[in-house]
Amino acid sequence: MRDSIRAIVAAIFTLTVAAPAHAEDGYRLWLRYDPLPAQIRHRYAAAATEIVVQSNGAIARSAEGELRRGLSGLLARQIPVGSSVDRDGAIVAELSKASLGDEGFTIRTTQIAGHEATVINASNERGLLYGAFALLRRFQTQQPIDHLNVRDRPKLALRMLDHWDNLNGSVERGYAGRSLWDWRTLPDWEDPRYTDYARADASIGVNGVVLNNVNAQADILTEPYLRKVAALADVFRPWAIRVYLSARFSAPIDIGGLKTADPLDPAVHAWWKAKVDEIYGVIPDFGGFLVKANSEGEPGPQDYHRTHADGANMLADALRPHGGIVLWRAFVYSSASDDRAKQAFDEFQPLDGKFANNVIVQIKSGPIDFQPREPFHPLFGAMPKTKLGMEAQITKEYLGFNTHLAYLGTMWEEVLSARTFRPQEDSRVADTLTAMAGVANTGSSRSWSGSQFDQANWYAFGRLAWDPDASAKAIAEEWTRMTWGNDPRVVNAILPMMMKSRQAVVDYMTPLGLAHLMGTDHHYGPAPWVSDLKRPEWNPVYYHRADLGGIGFDRTAAGSNALSQYAPGAMRQFTTDDYLLWFNYVPWDQKLKSGRSVWTELVWRYDRGVDEVRAMQRQWEALRGSVDDQRFDEVSAYLAIQGREAKWWRDACIAYFQSISKHPLPSGSAPPEHPLSYYEALRFPNAPAH
Amino acid sequence: MRDSIRAIVAAIFTLTVAAPAHAEDGYRLWLRYDPLPAQIRHRYAAAATEIVVQSNGAIARSAEGELRRGLSGLLARQIPVGSSVDRDGAIVAELSKASLGDEGFTIRTTQIAGHEATVINASNERGLLYGAFALLRRFQTQQPIDHLNVRDRPKLALRMLDHWDNLNGSVERGYAGRSLWDWRTLPDWEDPRYTDYARADASIGVNGVVLNNVNAQADILTEPYLRKVAALADVFRPWAIRVYLSARFSAPIDIGGLKTADPLDPAVHAWWKAKVDEIYGVIPDFGGFLVKANSEGEPGPQDYHRTHADGANMLADALRPHGGIVLWRAFVYSSASDDRAKQAFDEFQPLDGKFANNVIVQIKSGPIDFQPREPFHPLFGAMPKTKLGMEAQITKEYLGFNTHLAYLGTMWEEVLSARTFRPQEDSRVADTLTAMAGVANTGSSRSWSGSQFDQANWYAFGRLAWDPDASAKAIAEEWTRMTWGNDPRVVNAILPMMMKSRQAVVDYMTPLGLAHLMGTDHHYGPAPWVSDLKRPEWNPVYYHRADLGGIGFDRTAAGSNALSQYAPGAMRQFTTDDYLLWFNYVPWDQKLKSGRSVWTELVWRYDRGVDEVRAMQRQWEALRGSVDDQRFDEVSAYLAIQGREAKWWRDACIAYFQSISKHPLPSGSAPPEHPLSYYEALRFPNAPAH
Repeated sequence: MRDSIRAIVAAIFTLTVAAPAHAEDGYRLWLRYDPLPAQIRHRYAAAATEIVVQSNGAIARSAEGELRRGLSGLLARQIPVGSSVDRDGAIVAELSKASLGDEGFTIRTTQIAGHEATVINASNERGLLYGAFALLRRFQTQQPIDHLNVRDRPKLALRMLDHWDNLNGSVERGYAGRSLWDWRTLPDWEDPRYTDYARADASIGVNGVVLNNVNAQADILTEPYLRKVAALADVFRPWAIRVYLSARFSAPIDIGGLKTADPLDPAVHAWWKAKVDEIYGVIPDFGGFLVKANSEGEPGPQDYHRTHADGANMLADALRPHGGIVLWRAFVYSSASDDRAKQAFDEFQPLDGKFANNVIVQIKSGPIDFQPREPFHPLFGAMPKTKLGMEAQITKEYLGFNTHLAYLGTMWEEVLSARTFRPQEDSRVADTLTAMAGVANTGSSRSWSGSQFDQANWYAFGRLAWDPDASAKAIAEEWTRMTWGNDPRVVNAILPMMMKSRQAVVDYMTPLGLAHLMGTDHHYGPAPWVSDLKRPEWNPVYYHRADLGGIGFDRTAAGSNALSQYAPGAMRQFTTDDYLLWFNYVPWDQKLKSGRSVWTELVWRYDRGVDEVRAMQRQWEALRGSVDDQRFDEVSAYLAIQGREAKWWRDACIAYFQSISKHPLPSGSAPPEHPLSYYEALRFPNAPAH
Repeated sequence: MRDSIRAIVAAIFTLTVAAPAHAEDGYRLWLRYDPLPAQIRHRYAAAATEIVVQSNGAIARSAEGELRRGLSGLLARQIPVGSSVDRDGAIVAELSKASLGDEGFTIRTTQIAGHEATVINASNERGLLYGAFALLRRFQTQQPIDHLNVRDRPKLALRMLDHWDNLNGSVERGYAGRSLWDWRTLPDWEDPRYTDYARADASIGVNGVVLNNVNAQADILTEPYLRKVAALADVFRPWAIRVYLSARFSAPIDIGGLKTADPLDPAVHAWWKAKVDEIYGVIPDFGGFLVKANSEGEPGPQDYHRTHADGANMLADALRPHGGIVLWRAFVYSSASDDRAKQAFDEFQPLDGKFANNVIVQIKSGPIDFQPREPFHPLFGAMPKTKLGMEAQITKEYLGFNTHLAYLGTMWEEVLSARTFRPQEDSRVADTLTAMAGVANTGSSRSWSGSQFDQANWYAFGRLAWDPDASAKAIAEEWTRMTWGNDPRVVNAILPMMMKSRQAVVDYMTPLGLAHLMGTDHHYGPAPWVSDLKRPEWNPVYYHRADLGGIGFDRTAAGSNALSQYAPGAMRQFTTDDYLLWFNYVPWDQKLKSGRSVWTELVWRYDRGVDEVRAMQRQWEALRGSVDDQRFDEVSAYLAIQGREAKWWRDACIAYFQSISKHPLPSGSAPPEHPLSYYEALRFPNAPAH
């Protein structure tokens, strides 16, 4: 062999033989850039001969690097980077006076200096970066790249990830290992993983990151931590991502030495102003604050008999000179309300018009708390004079943690496309939003999200925040192709699994509009029998209200009348049996549209959920050998866990509800594996992340 | 290009361009197997032409796989695996009637069937595995491999890692992320990382692993967890590693439904016997129990007025039929003793001869608790009728966590080579041992140990447990060559850094025999002023006893007389100033051998420690470009942290001791950066792992 070939062979051995044997751990997410099949590469070859990025900022450099890395990987040859177009097939990114906002872009097939070129245009480097990822996605998913005439811009201005990461490295409701942020070694050590994280976010359009838990420690606002935050902001900035912080409302007391945090106290106002100025001194593009106030024990303006608007506006005032914003959460509930589902509306709707214009009220997708299925939150559309954001939960606190396969794209699509009938007759939830915030499912686990398939939820969140009208199915297919490859056999097996997966979870956990039946605090596994917690709305029995006569929460006019918080037109959407027990108390024997009684339907749906997981296991098993062994085995193992836990949910819930309804099991439905007492006695002192 | 070349190039692009940009994260540890320089490969080529492993067990398969992976990587060509020697240059492993025990091996250059061969012989596959790693190490460190005539066997039968891992995934005193064991997904998912962990352990001769914290939860002994433990045991078995568990002494009450855990109660005895039988039913080669009893609040036999021997022997009795053992910790102290350093000796020495022969009393290296420098524990050599193990702490609870570079090989060498003068005149600590147990520094951080250089401590522990007479310097060089490469410039820079590093920590934290001056509970940073904790021996002032007259703990006959726990001949080793304040209270102005007063020497040593870290920073900086950027940058950042924290320790301790001694600073010694009150006011609510 010639020496150069020897060198090549040596390099291959280094990288294949000697490298850790198990590289397929999912670390690369959907940005794998493995070589496309030869015939596809051949087809693309003439259209990607060089990369020319005509802008010199840090974000343009990110775009250029990503195009080089992506195209060189996908096409299996080094694509040169040039300073001007000198051949056919150039991939060009350049600023222009495009009218697509700061983040929009066009991608067009055209000619430059007499050469064929694919040109990304944008008025800002951020658009170039998003255009670069959009173009790469076309290559990755093997779409045509000739005759392109793409125009795209995000429909929402703010596309945020909220990290519920504590300063001690734990992550509340995190099922993917410790926090990505190593506060101990920041700012000295900027782990390369921070860059990989930012790349992944940028690739799906996320443009803001809240670094710390909404149950915040004020320490994050002290000088040593701000220097650490600034180091992360420096890493994220070239990826068009701004850093935000969760601010503890009592920080003026906790770290400021004041005796009060009253938002109308001039000293408090001055303290926040000085603190915000200090922050912008080290992070010039700081995004702003996320605040959880007067919620689950957190301090807030109501401690001083002020309103949420008083609190938010005080912070907004401090942030305004710097262009910062306040994200003020509407997640409030207390035992004083007759129905927890009503409280956020009751408290926030009257404040419409009272919030400053750099405040966004951040509302959970549903009125309770990220259940497998909830109706959309009634505040959407009900505060026309207020900027609203939707908070979605990517981490699966209530959908099986990291070991259940549940694609959430369909769940979010359901909410985003729901019609609010407010402020306009044709308004949908998506139309009422300025922002979407996803509670991140990332952590230091090698697969980032704690499982291979949970990566899809991170991906889908970003894509839906960019375009809330996008199809969950199209997103799932896109992700599947990028993550698992374009083999039609693989895509055609995975896609239906994903599309049915969330309904399966609804069925085996909380069918027919049930909610909040899970174990106390840790939320692991079923506990519909729990009735002894201090506050009524902490108990599962509060939510299902099952007794000998029937089951369900009456939220009609005869009950709590939470239904009235929706526009009259919107109510029709809740007449499907999927929301039956959310809004109605119904007798066990009442006949449903299916022809089955409520009791029979309940059991039938629990059975359907378990069956669906078994079907997923079979569908996955058929892919053995079609995807890499490591990821295949991991998914198989996780599906086995899901299968067991789905049955556990089904058995425990049926055992319990049968003890209430006193009805026999429908024929063909297997009795629970254990008596109810067995399920009631289970304890999980080591359940994760609570 | 021909098609085969195209394929090669495509493969290279896959692995270099598209792979994550930052692969040098230390994951491969010392088992990197990168191609050796061409001229070295050329020299080795004729001696490694095929691999022939003549044994069919799982451990032999591990040895074969490792030889293939290692040699193919190092020599940059695929080395074929054959079933018999058919050419010159074979690497052969085969069982023989060698007289080197179950784990020993020979490696000889010889002839087989008329062909030149390098032959590993052992009487058991475990010896073949260790021989394979030993041979690979010779390649990795570029030692001669012709004319080999190596005989090696471990000097200690048990070489254990103790993981202080909790079932919720946290690691007590762990600075490297979460536990490696994902209890939630076991036994379904056997993360490939478990295998990588076992390989690393096997490569340094570790043959036993305690999976859970000595502050144990009894849950680990319940059926669901035992199935998880069994899955890990299955992964570890082919790497010659047995699994052990920390057993909570009150388990018969906690999970057994008994009212007592009295070791002399027949029901308790029967419960443990049944539990042990159950364990061996799923883990036939289970190693045994590690027990922390009547120590820091843990339950134990003294709760029932029984002795440690009563407790240990009861468990030993249950384990004996299966070949299992008990590791019973001697780490006990209470406020009742006038000197914490004396208590383990006072309590355990009288029990010599009382322990069953499958009990090992596990004694910390020094009489207090893993301080940067302690005299060896007086129990070593003092219990000739009892099997003893030494517990060393690999995780750096008291030596700067993961961000301080401190090579512990020299510390352990100091203890192991110390002369006990018992039971024989020429006995050293190493001679009194049956086992060594290292408190692991591993976690799910990508570098395993939380820093690149902390890997060296894992490595050194294993190598010293195999051969307690080995040279810490030789081990450091071996590790450096395997981990950072054989470039003499690199080796010659790293080796002196490592060799001086532990003394530097002693100097900037606790010079002259001081101990236990760190912050309460979390042990992060200096707090020599703390005096208000409930138990006297929890307070730093208990240890340094500084007042206007002088400083130090009088452990001579005039004081606690802890010195008398050592053999008279051994005491001479403690007359060096390195142990001065451990054994003596001395006036501030007393002159030392250096010619300096105690006060001046104290300050001088603090300064020396800080200077040494600055020197390490310069020495490392000189390697820029000689090692890969990622690991270089990480080490640089960590050294910067160490530099700041060394100065913090020095400044805070000098400020405090000066407030006591009322002496001026020696000329040339800079005053502390802040007043004492500043250091006293620092709080670390988020310090790791406490």
